[in-house]
Amino acid sequence: MGENLGRLRERLADISRLREAGAVLGWDRQTYMPPAGAASRAAQLSTIERMAHELFIDDVTGELLEAARAELNGAAPESDDASLVRVTTRDYENDRKLPPTFVREMTEHSVLAQQIWIEARENNDFRTFMPALAGTIDLARRMADYLGYEGEMYDALLDVFEPGMKTERVAALFAELKSELVPLVAAIAERSDRVDDAVLHQSFDERLQEEFGTMMAEKFGFDFQRGRLDRTVHPFAVGFTRNDVRITTRFDPNFLTSSLFSTLHEAGHGMYEQGIGASLEGTPLAHGTSLGVHESQSRLWENIVGRSLDTWQHFYPLLQETFPQLDDIDLQTFYGAINRVYPSLIRVEADEVTYNLHIMLRFEMERELLAGAYPLAEAPEVWNEKMRSYFGVTPPNDTQGILQDVHWSGGMMGYFPTYTIGTVLSAQLFDAARRAYPTIPEEMRAGEFGNLHGWLTENIYQHGSKFQPEELIVRATGEPLQTRSYIGYLKTKFGDLYGLAG
Amino acid sequence: MGENLGRLRERLADISRLREAGAVLGWDRQTYMPPAGAASRAAQLSTIERMAHELFIDDVTGELLEAARAELNGAAPESDDASLVRVTTRDYENDRKLPPTFVREMTEHSVLAQQIWIEARENNDFRTFMPALAGTIDLARRMADYLGYEGEMYDALLDVFEPGMKTERVAALFAELKSELVPLVAAIAERSDRVDDAVLHQSFDERLQEEFGTMMAEKFGFDFQRGRLDRTVHPFAVGFTRNDVRITTRFDPNFLTSSLFSTLHEAGHGMYEQGIGASLEGTPLAHGTSLGVHESQSRLWENIVGRSLDTWQHFYPLLQETFPQLDDIDLQTFYGAINRVYPSLIRVEADEVTYNLHIMLRFEMERELLAGAYPLAEAPEVWNEKMRSYFGVTPPNDTQGILQDVHWSGGMMGYFPTYTIGTVLSAQLFDAARRAYPTIPEEMRAGEFGNLHGWLTENIYQHGSKFQPEELIVRATGEPLQTRSYIGYLKTKFGDLYGLAG
Repeated sequence: MGENLGRLRERLADISRLREAGAVLGWDRQTYMPPAGAASRAAQLSTIERMAHELFIDDVTGELLEAARAELNGAAPESDDASLVRVTTRDYENDRKLPPTFVREMTEHSVLAQQIWIEARENNDFRTFMPALAGTIDLARRMADYLGYEGEMYDALLDVFEPGMKTERVAALFAELKSELVPLVAAIAERSDRVDDAVLHQSFDERLQEEFGTMMAEKFGFDFQRGRLDRTVHPFAVGFTRNDVRITTRFDPNFLTSSLFSTLHEAGHGMYEQGIGASLEGTPLAHGTSLGVHESQSRLWENIVGRSLDTWQHFYPLLQETFPQLDDIDLQTFYGAINRVYPSLIRVEADEVTYNLHIMLRFEMERELLAGAYPLAEAPEVWNEKMRSYFGVTPPNDTQGILQDVHWSGGMMGYFPTYTIGTVLSAQLFDAARRAYPTIPEEMRAGEFGNLHGWLTENIYQHGSKFQPEELIVRATGEPLQTRSYIGYLKTKFGDLYGLAG
Repeated sequence: MGENLGRLRERLADISRLREAGAVLGWDRQTYMPPAGAASRAAQLSTIERMAHELFIDDVTGELLEAARAELNGAAPESDDASLVRVTTRDYENDRKLPPTFVREMTEHSVLAQQIWIEARENNDFRTFMPALAGTIDLARRMADYLGYEGEMYDALLDVFEPGMKTERVAALFAELKSELVPLVAAIAERSDRVDDAVLHQSFDERLQEEFGTMMAEKFGFDFQRGRLDRTVHPFAVGFTRNDVRITTRFDPNFLTSSLFSTLHEAGHGMYEQGIGASLEGTPLAHGTSLGVHESQSRLWENIVGRSLDTWQHFYPLLQETFPQLDDIDLQTFYGAINRVYPSLIRVEADEVTYNLHIMLRFEMERELLAGAYPLAEAPEVWNEKMRSYFGVTPPNDTQGILQDVHWSGGMMGYFPTYTIGTVLSAQLFDAARRAYPTIPEEMRAGEFGNLHGWLTENIYQHGSKFQPEELIVRATGEPLQTRSYIGYLKTKFGDLYGLAG
């Protein structure tokens, strides 16, 4: 290894270790920190993040990147060294575009706005949240200006979360989804009585719920020697390094699947982080490449695997052993219950079919808000009108409408589309894995997931952030992101479940 | 506040926040970290500690200290600002005396030597540990040379853990203790049949043990809004800040008091950290002033309060309610059981009377080893000979003899005396608190500890590291450290318990 490449790696390792430490502190804040620890924890995190940021955007980093590039000597683009220089240069240039005062302003805004949002949501009072939302929109516009863009302003924001993705492309994805999903939702609504989920709403011992979820996550491939499961109010996953990945869940003693599927969802994120190549540890490449690709893994394991009839052919008898109250419920009834389609007002409670319509609504509104298409005071009614148009339901209040998500109070615009990108991608990846291993469905019926997990590790996980999403997807599946697989998956699965004409 | 004082505070806050983050990572390592996380955790800690150390010993710190000193304008020595400059200057000058290469050598030695020690202890093989011990002695000598000393070399080592303390003074303390304790141990040995602790060795539900220990610690004054209790193999306490203090314990399902008294011991350390003045947060003053003073708090709450007849007059009926297997055991029998004197081979299992003889043995040997008084190969026999002389027992092997403690493998010489300093000080402080509030014993009998806790907060806790131990002790008790209180305490308590002539 060249001398400058070595010095670059040392510097990036310091930055990575600082950020890992920050992630540990963030995890502790949500799991075990005593209530009064919040203020000092904020100070610790602020110091660590500032130091990591200052080290990273310092001129020295740029000089080392340039000198290291000269030492690559034609190394293959997918080699660790060439990838390190390429990806870090991109991150460095992006981070340098944002003035430190602006970054500080963003952080301060998000702390304040979140507090305002929590109260506004509790009081069902959009007007008190309006100035905070105006602040978020203003910051998003200025951030886009700092980062720069060729086409639409939204491109700059999207690129932060999904490198390389364009607004036009997302809009096309949604158009394809909309034309298929709106009729599908309507067809299902006419036959909604075919599926019922009352069986999931009984009393289920929390300890047994935890044991069962842990067992399933482990069977899927989450490694508890290199990770653990804890309880939090809002489930999440965070990888400090590939050898220490924490996932969390919450338990509802009167609803079986709330915890189970959130455990499997976070385990999907966790397996991605656990599968990163060991040689990438201590570098900026040691995490998943984008929010969209990350979400493809949580969705794949939670839904395509976790809510499939194949998987439950193996696990349902075990679930009945654990919870004898399910003894009289047959597999088909249970399978229907965990896949019931229902026009929910709330995004995070939505089923697979309607979920992307929730995201589309938010994507449309973000573009409109950035463009100033209407006065902010009218935004709640715009939200409600879209809800009527896509789902046929009207939120009874803003708490269950425009105030439901944390993102806009956290200063995050351009984030929502990554949920749909991930969802669509999950089916495309599953199809590709099944082409490579046609026996995957029967393995799932036997409770075996090694080939699927192995294919994902080989094609997605191990690469960390080496490749931008599009390149990674093409390498893994032979084609760019497409909606065909996902629409096909939904039509087959829910067509069968609701007895729709094929 | 002067401009340079402000800049000094900012720099020290960064260093403090980094060290707090390191403490969180260290806590997590011992509580929740999955097994495979060890290597990346070591790298994270090493980065954080190196950055904090480099920031601290940098010339800039020295320049800011000097400039800030000029801005004090005659501020009182006990003011926050004057204390900050004075204490930080002392720490800065000490830390600058040790070359970075030497500090690295120390760290590497302790990691390696501890691994060797663990194996040597398992295999009862002192000879394999000898080279590591020789390395520790060599490093201790070199450290003393770097730090400098006027009288005995041991002074320099002692000063690291107990600022201002001298070897001669410790030797005098031990001489006083020895002349009283050896006859006391002998007198008790003749009446050992008067006390029995069989009642503690029964089956006790772990969950109930935890609830009871938590309740007692809370009654003593440990604030669970600003701290928490977890389980670890080796109990410890660590304060990140006054608002986030973690203590740990371990449970033995067949021995009631192992967990209970270790919880109270760590709660004592924890209350010290929780009581630090709020204005000291984010500075080097925001922790206890020395290991000895810290140990005085764990010992005071564990032993003087926690093993007293007064305290158990309140708690014993509650304990019997929790554990009905104690229904037929009267308070006096229980009180005897938790205070049984027995010549243990193992320091950490020793009772209050014999404990300091274990420490004296180690203090004597550390001075002899540093002076090269005999070949290392003879050290185990020296150890055993001292055990015979002080306790009348001979360790059957080195695992239960010279290999029992971690300290010498961790490169720590000069640490042991702080245990005895703390023990002796605990009684001196308790006497002073009782002079201020003569009702403390009857308050203890009513389960109330507010006056005692308040007096300790006022006189010890709030000051953090503002004062060196000796100054703090004189301010709190009106006299320097003395053995009179502790010897009087032991003679009264154990004289009563074993029916010795007064």
